[in-house]
Amino acid sequence: MGSTFGHFFRISTWGESHGAAVGVVVDGCPPNLDLTEDDIQAELDRRRPGQSRVTTQRKEADTCQILSGVFEGKTLGTPILILVWNTDAKSEHYAPFQHIYRPSHADYAYDAKYGIRNWQGGGRASARETVGRVAAGAIAKKLLDTQCGTEIIGYVKQIHKLYADVDPASVTLDQVEANIVRCPDPHCAEEMIAQIDWARRQGDSLGGVVELVARNVPAGLGEPVFDKLEADLAKAIMSLPASKGFEIGSGFAGTTLTGSQHNDPYEMRDGQVHTRTNNSGGVQGGISIGEPITLRAAFKPTATINKTQETVTDTGEATTLAAKGRHDPCVLPRAVPMVEAMVALVLADHYLRQKAQCS
Amino acid sequence: MGSTFGHFFRISTWGESHGAAVGVVVDGCPPNLDLTEDDIQAELDRRRPGQSRVTTQRKEADTCQILSGVFEGKTLGTPILILVWNTDAKSEHYAPFQHIYRPSHADYAYDAKYGIRNWQGGGRASARETVGRVAAGAIAKKLLDTQCGTEIIGYVKQIHKLYADVDPASVTLDQVEANIVRCPDPHCAEEMIAQIDWARRQGDSLGGVVELVARNVPAGLGEPVFDKLEADLAKAIMSLPASKGFEIGSGFAGTTLTGSQHNDPYEMRDGQVHTRTNNSGGVQGGISIGEPITLRAAFKPTATINKTQETVTDTGEATTLAAKGRHDPCVLPRAVPMVEAMVALVLADHYLRQKAQCS
Amino acid sequence: MGSTFGHFFRISTWGESHGAAVGVVVDGCPPNLDLTEDDIQAELDRRRPGQSRVTTQRKEADTCQILSGVFEGKTLGTPILILVWNTDAKSEHYAPFQHIYRPSHADYAYDAKYGIRNWQGGGRASARETVGRVAAGAIAKKLLDTQCGTEIIGYVKQIHKLYADVDPASVTLDQVEANIVRCPDPHCAEEMIAQIDWARRQGDSLGGVVELVARNVPAGLGEPVFDKLEADLAKAIMSLPASKGFEIGSGFAGTTLTGSQHNDPYEMRDGQVHTRTNNSGGVQGGISIGEPITLRAAFKPTATINKTQETVTDTGEATTLAAKGRHDPCVLPRAVPMVEAMVALVLADHYLRQKAQCS
Amino acid sequence: MGSTFGHFFRISTWGESHGAAVGVVVDGCPPNLDLTEDDIQAELDRRRPGQSRVTTQRKEADTCQILSGVFEGKTLGTPILILVWNTDAKSEHYAPFQHIYRPSHADYAYDAKYGIRNWQGGGRASARETVGRVAAGAIAKKLLDTQCGTEIIGYVKQIHKLYADVDPASVTLDQVEANIVRCPDPHCAEEMIAQIDWARRQGDSLGGVVELVARNVPAGLGEPVFDKLEADLAKAIMSLPASKGFEIGSGFAGTTLTGSQHNDPYEMRDGQVHTRTNNSGGVQGGISIGEPITLRAAFKPTATINKTQETVTDTGEATTLAAKGRHDPCVLPRAVPMVEAMVALVLADHYLRQKAQCS
Repeated sequence: MGSTFGHFFRISTWGESHGAAVGVVVDGCPPNLDLTEDDIQAELDRRRPGQSRVTTQRKEADTCQILSGVFEGKTLGTPILILVWNTDAKSEHYAPFQHIYRPSHADYAYDAKYGIRNWQGGGRASARETVGRVAAGAIAKKLLDTQCGTEIIGYVKQIHKLYADVDPASVTLDQVEANIVRCPDPHCAEEMIAQIDWARRQGDSLGGVVELVARNVPAGLGEPVFDKLEADLAKAIMSLPASKGFEIGSGFAGTTLTGSQHNDPYEMRDGQVHTRTNNSGGVQGGISIGEPITLRAAFKPTATINKTQETVTDTGEATTLAAKGRHDPCVLPRAVPMVEAMVALVLADHYLRQKAQCS
Repeated sequence: MGSTFGHFFRISTWGESHGAAVGVVVDGCPPNLDLTEDDIQAELDRRRPGQSRVTTQRKEADTCQILSGVFEGKTLGTPILILVWNTDAKSEHYAPFQHIYRPSHADYAYDAKYGIRNWQGGGRASARETVGRVAAGAIAKKLLDTQCGTEIIGYVKQIHKLYADVDPASVTLDQVEANIVRCPDPHCAEEMIAQIDWARRQGDSLGGVVELVARNVPAGLGEPVFDKLEADLAKAIMSLPASKGFEIGSGFAGTTLTGSQHNDPYEMRDGQVHTRTNNSGGVQGGISIGEPITLRAAFKPTATINKTQETVTDTGEATTLAAKGRHDPCVLPRAVPMVEAMVALVLADHYLRQKAQCS
Repeated sequence: MGSTFGHFFRISTWGESHGAAVGVVVDGCPPNLDLTEDDIQAELDRRRPGQSRVTTQRKEADTCQILSGVFEGKTLGTPILILVWNTDAKSEHYAPFQHIYRPSHADYAYDAKYGIRNWQGGGRASARETVGRVAAGAIAKKLLDTQCGTEIIGYVKQIHKLYADVDPASVTLDQVEANIVRCPDPHCAEEMIAQIDWARRQGDSLGGVVELVARNVPAGLGEPVFDKLEADLAKAIMSLPASKGFEIGSGFAGTTLTGSQHNDPYEMRDGQVHTRTNNSGGVQGGISIGEPITLRAAFKPTATINKTQETVTDTGEATTLAAKGRHDPCVLPRAVPMVEAMVALVLADHYLRQKAQCS
Repeated sequence: MGSTFGHFFRISTWGESHGAAVGVVVDGCPPNLDLTEDDIQAELDRRRPGQSRVTTQRKEADTCQILSGVFEGKTLGTPILILVWNTDAKSEHYAPFQHIYRPSHADYAYDAKYGIRNWQGGGRASARETVGRVAAGAIAKKLLDTQCGTEIIGYVKQIHKLYADVDPASVTLDQVEANIVRCPDPHCAEEMIAQIDWARRQGDSLGGVVELVARNVPAGLGEPVFDKLEADLAKAIMSLPASKGFEIGSGFAGTTLTGSQHNDPYEMRDGQVHTRTNNSGGVQGGISIGEPITLRAAFKPTATINKTQETVTDTGEATTLAAKGRHDPCVLPRAVPMVEAMVALVLADHYLRQKAQCS
């Protein structure tokens, strides 16, 4: 009952990791937007497993089909169904774990909640579910770009204990895509790749932080007091698999400043109200003010590792789990398009909401 | 259009900081719950301005009235309206700022969005709006306590650069309420109070972190994939005024661990599945697993300070703002009941949702 | 959990018939709309009990107060709280029925659902709850009138077996308000009044039909496939107390025509597409087309009568109920502003929705 | 933005009449319900075009596939995606009408709203969209049957001026399915079939009324004051293509009774509170009371006819439309499963809602 996101630009994802297919319905996309499968495929390719040596090696082409809502290259204003068939859904990999709760996976939680689960892979808890999010996010991105010139750029800011040096004001998509780890600090990127290679060899996994900047976001987006822009962004990010933290603007670091240090003075630039600094992260009182939106998302190290772990079975017996085979040593490079998609979905939703209120 | 929160246990707050009254409608509270105004007043008193020297000195008794939904001491299952009259709404304090955008306040954002604002105080952006949240949260707390034995305990973990040492597993409400800063580490609490006194004298303000633990939360709460428990908790927290960050379990610190360090091994205790560690913060795959839920909320330093600041007027002229008079040097002590209220509202909502799915 | 209506122009009513007060929160009204308590009072006065000899004689001034959301005569875009104190809530009238299920009232239904009810009057099932609807509807009417010139005119079309002759194309508010029964056919109105007087003397009650026309409704309102305009209108009407039927355009009578008789031919008038006939009732495919919207709402005879009736107690014993005292012999005259309010709420909601989709 | 229905048992339909496929996502179906494609196919076969000589002759097998949410014959509690490929989507039939507004179709309305439409058939306004509703309704029916023993039986009560004599208390599915017109009055059914044959030969179409009874509906379903059971039923029915009216219990006819005639006296039967009569139609105060729910839905004659009609083009020129080829002379027989599906969806949604409130 929780697979729908958004109010005006509303998506419903569906599909289990090892079921027949995964996908999404997008309801509320305005009519007459140019849209083709290529627009969506481009983002899916950034999310795709097996795209490089630093990601999971599951083999999925992730080719999308649009089955409704688009006619002669334009959106109709009706629901858009996007479908991706699962092709590398080898359930035999999972047969040994059918009755074993993998630590820090959702196996036990799903059993506790539903009393049943598709043990062939992570089911809905798998990152595979994000195929639908990224596909829908591609449409949201296109809408925002077409109507507002909005740019949404995410990148890997941190992996394990390696911190990249990136200027959100100037970072470009090309810089992000210049390496397989999606870190626009080239020197740090090399170290990150080496670190991931090490983790893979160890059968271990790494966490990190994705940072994102959204530029040219119209002022006025966000609905106080509960649907504040940062609140919906936080929900969007924290709904991604493996996310453990969210911050906007100065975030946790800003708590060590005083008010006189933290407040963003207003000034006029180009005849427009601007803030001199951006500790607010582009949002004040829950509403965008036209400054770049900056946020960060923390991802824990992937739960699947190739080391022996202690755990219990679904009948309550102590056992050990010794996974063997492919694992995803670091989700961060693929998390970048996921974070971007969620931010785009929030912004598109609030953009349409705000239009309803203008006179 | 964003003043409603929750789906099953649904609240709508209303009221401006300097309007006639503030309050809340609670729709969806189950019938036959014992409830009196005292239950609500107790929490409002913890949120009340002027409760101690470390908070804002606005004088409000914040006495609540229940106008509907309760009959002979029990809830009817119908909407509960709670009203608190504003008594210390002196708009003359704000007259000088009628046309000046106060830095890092919501003045400019509201003008940009609505084209109009109640300049007599912060309007809906004021922390006064949280009266309705805390009142509704008191009902949610009572529901959870009565039906599940759930305990929700928040406390000040950090103010400015002072970090308290607190064990979430054992902290009690009495320890929290033992001092005016709501920090259960007595030594640190004294330092925090001194720090706030200093900030007040400086005309400056301080930020910090509220930490919260929720014990005896039933397993199975949370609705993947978008209404995951941590996603709704993040939205709830990030909808509070001045919040800039949210984390659950290991949070941002957990990103520097490896998977083998971070995974929580399962074990049997008292015939029940438990995790040995709790990096997950009580939630896996978006679903509560019966372990204590632990989270942290970052609050920036309050925007109102008594120092001269540069800014602009609503007609775009550079000016300086020199506020004089009472200000709130640190919102953290009063943020504790606010955070608790939001967490209680999320848990109550998901508790009712989960009941709908059980067989 | 069902006291909220609308998505963009969203209202939440609260209050029991014999509680302290009744009212509504309106969330989503656009900012900068001129609004005073007089705008709302005018509609409440049309709904008020005791306004004439053909309605219930409960004495309520129904004076409204706006407690939030309006500043210096204009809406702020924030929630609007409207409150009406109950003054004639004499619970002793109801003491004899505390344990008796009044036939075709909601007493038994509420006990079955909630296991508790406020037996002092009808609680939420009372028509008193519609105070909040009519108050909110007054705002919706003003919004539609100001921004679209929309006119919403309801009137009594039928009482018992008396059918008025009214032309929806030309009927005016003055004609409706010219008599206490709100029937713009003066001759029929007199008969209706006599019929109601007869029913009152008999201790009995009468049903009937309210017809409504909405003119100058913009084309394009309605959201296929579920939130079609007629679907939301039907829900709105059928949520009113005592309503048993809804039809739009040709309605049930249209089922006896053939397609060639029923189809509305298109033609150009004043450079605009129009239909020659209006069997569609102004809606095609769930979307307004700019023609007048015409609909009808059936209301059963009021359940409260002064005749002896067989029934059972809440412990399952057969008994008889002999109500004595004031009763409402016919709700139809007061149902007119209720129906208008609900239609206005639906149109305002869809008007704002449609704005979100325009380019 | 209106293709989602329900809150707890929530469906989103997608697909245009002449697009690649049509279908539905069902979110909120409880886990562990036995479900196969056969359960769904059985209902789709009752809705299928070409099933008999009295329906449209479009050739569609309407074979459904479940792509998610079901594992080893049981629901997972995750979204269920059902897909039906369109196979007889011959757009060339519609090429002549690409720029002509067909009277009482949604062509003009969609152009007015969206500024674009898929002219190859009715798009979302086509009855083809109801494939997803009927598929989802089959799941809702199974849930209600399994958990409550609820029986939902619809039938054709009236076609044109022919009225069937049916006792809702005793009618059976077998009686309904005994003839191709789905009228359980065998004599009237024969006349109806002859009437439809006549209409087909004339190139004309007929309207009528579907009546429905739901037995063994638990007491307590419905959420006053807006989500009353009859309000949600009305919305559900009025969202179906070609519906023009809805009534419950005594409906419009009940408006000519007095209160003393209309009230349903309570009595005890089998130790349970019952009403002696059922003018209420099983619902009082918006809440089911355990009596059979009876309702009626009016359908206008189908808009597609084979007679010459006056109309205009999308550039505002007068023209005539002379459709040739297959048309649907009467939608009533196929409307029966559609009405049943919508009622099942409403009941399932409210059944789950009510579970959330029980203690």
